[in-house]
Amino acid sequence: MSAPLLFKNRVMTPGPTDVPPEVLLEMAKPIIHHRTKEFQGIFQELSEGLSRLFRTSGPVLSIAGSGTTAFEAAQTSLVKPGTKALTIAGGKFGERWQDIYETYGVEQVQINVEWGKAVDLGAVEAALNEHSDISVITVVHSETSTATASDVKGIAELASKTDAILIVDGITAVGALPVEMDAWGIDALVTGSQKSMMLPPGLGFVGLGERAIARLGETDGIANYNLDLRKWLKSHANKDVPFTPPVGLVRGQNVALKIVERVGLENVWARTAKLAEATRVAFGAMGLKPASESPSDSVTGAYYPDGVSDGAFRAAVRDNHGMAIAGGQVGRNGDFKGKVFRVNHMGYVDAGDTLASLLAIETELIAAGVEIEAGTALAAAGGVLCG
Amino acid sequence: MSAPLLFKNRVMTPGPTDVPPEVLLEMAKPIIHHRTKEFQGIFQELSEGLSRLFRTSGPVLSIAGSGTTAFEAAQTSLVKPGTKALTIAGGKFGERWQDIYETYGVEQVQINVEWGKAVDLGAVEAALNEHSDISVITVVHSETSTATASDVKGIAELASKTDAILIVDGITAVGALPVEMDAWGIDALVTGSQKSMMLPPGLGFVGLGERAIARLGETDGIANYNLDLRKWLKSHANKDVPFTPPVGLVRGQNVALKIVERVGLENVWARTAKLAEATRVAFGAMGLKPASESPSDSVTGAYYPDGVSDGAFRAAVRDNHGMAIAGGQVGRNGDFKGKVFRVNHMGYVDAGDTLASLLAIETELIAAGVEIEAGTALAAAGGVLCG
Repeated sequence: MSAPLLFKNRVMTPGPTDVPPEVLLEMAKPIIHHRTKEFQGIFQELSEGLSRLFRTSGPVLSIAGSGTTAFEAAQTSLVKPGTKALTIAGGKFGERWQDIYETYGVEQVQINVEWGKAVDLGAVEAALNEHSDISVITVVHSETSTATASDVKGIAELASKTDAILIVDGITAVGALPVEMDAWGIDALVTGSQKSMMLPPGLGFVGLGERAIARLGETDGIANYNLDLRKWLKSHANKDVPFTPPVGLVRGQNVALKIVERVGLENVWARTAKLAEATRVAFGAMGLKPASESPSDSVTGAYYPDGVSDGAFRAAVRDNHGMAIAGGQVGRNGDFKGKVFRVNHMGYVDAGDTLASLLAIETELIAAGVEIEAGTALAAAGGVLCG
Repeated sequence: MSAPLLFKNRVMTPGPTDVPPEVLLEMAKPIIHHRTKEFQGIFQELSEGLSRLFRTSGPVLSIAGSGTTAFEAAQTSLVKPGTKALTIAGGKFGERWQDIYETYGVEQVQINVEWGKAVDLGAVEAALNEHSDISVITVVHSETSTATASDVKGIAELASKTDAILIVDGITAVGALPVEMDAWGIDALVTGSQKSMMLPPGLGFVGLGERAIARLGETDGIANYNLDLRKWLKSHANKDVPFTPPVGLVRGQNVALKIVERVGLENVWARTAKLAEATRVAFGAMGLKPASESPSDSVTGAYYPDGVSDGAFRAAVRDNHGMAIAGGQVGRNGDFKGKVFRVNHMGYVDAGDTLASLLAIETELIAAGVEIEAGTALAAAGGVLCG
């Protein structure tokens, strides 16, 4: 093999993503106690920053755990027992939210979309019309497993005409794609720390709109001690959390949000979109078939050309270029495992990393026998990124 | 302005260069005392690694200071008082070594080469023939100020036929370009920590061959307490240094050398050459005139096209892309200030960073009014780097 041209470690999976040095240094500071004025100040600053990020005047709760923790908290706290949940899935994560309601025995109206496609608004409207006892809707804004974006604004419009509370999985959307929680009328918006939030895994976030807060007052939801959002909301009003928070992550998230504000959230959205466009154009130039018909700008997926092995390809990208990229996943209604690979555009990643990913991918596709003229991907990306 | 596509901080100057996270973490460890077995073990490991890097079976001394400190130590310790020094210069750094001998009143035979050109071996041979009382020769392997490489192997061959000790400025050569201290017969080889050594500034290194060690036994050189290499050589034999060493830097350098050995020194040379080739080809595709007729692979320089202001251009590269690149320098016999810019290929830098630098440079040249078809640089670089 020739000498490696890439050797820096780059985590180019759609979560976890790389963390900026300023954030790593903040998290490396000596521990402080969480029941102190010092921590309270940090926590309040974080909460205010989160509300700005979520584009809401309401509270955003910071819950120790993963995005799944936060989503389960929203699902269990906001559903009215004895009613139905409309659960929209077109990939691994949409199916997970169905699994959670399945676990708790909540009756579901499922809309299962073919993997790689976005849900049709007509189907959502029809389901809402048909079932008047739907109390919550779950939808994934950016379905990470299929690199697919859905029209959350449209779904929020439909939901707002009903009594159903819309819970949006914004885990690979918030901080990457334009999401306007208040303007679009999203009732509950969830994300996790290890995607566009530029933090290691360990924190989940739930933004609550007025209708969601009203719902918390109306129902006990599903019994859950730790994840009862009423506790978190009450603590939040006191600039606090009900249980010991991951202090280092809270500090780090505060610094990460300041980086986003320094760059400008709209600039982050624009950068993410541009990196995604450059990647799609470069993939297209190499003759790769997109994984999605409705591509998300936070992650790009493509089918492997015939004869390329997922395991060998990603091992070569890792071993020869120091880069982690993601493979495909398998679920109940779709199977991208071994068929698709995915590259991240969220968080602490820029055009340099994106070009590095294209170099690594093109080099290893050529090495695997795919006929591509050397330099095709970079030339195509250059046309998008330059000037 | 459009949203920044590059925002990570990248130090793409030809020194200082970026430092790998493993090295930064090593240097962040709690301080240890330097007169201990623990430090002695670290120091010996470093010394052995340095000898492998220098391709010598002899000692490499680690001196607190800059590359200039180490070079001055070699110059003052190795010159025989009352003899002449042959000092070859074709840029700012070659001229600095002339300045040092000027400071100490050492008589010089100067060969001043036009900036951007390599010294002609015939001129060196003629000077050595003409002046039988030359006791030292100074030459710059890679003249950073003009991005120019000289034929050090050829000069070493000429020097070996005389009694003159050859002192090579390898500050942007060692660890970047093929340098074979023993095989080429280099008597004294100097580098600094902040270039291809992947360390912050603060350490200089002097490798000593047999003839140089013999010379230290024959002469007192020029009086200098701190920089008397005899002290350093004596301490080195005892796995020690004469004065308090920068403990954190020594630890960090040890880790940095292990990274080089993990990648493989020949692979590092090959990567550096490839990144330089890609940059030269991309610069050529954009119509830029090279700063050097004999380009070094460790740094590439190019003249600004007409109408591009050095200050405004580098400020835009810094402010819009988070990237530091170097301008030109001015000396006694040349002036590249405001006329030339330079980009690094040494140390902790890879194809991703190089592509990022080309994106930033092309974008800001276009913004400055230079007519370049968008994507030209990346397409050209892609042809070199891929496949």
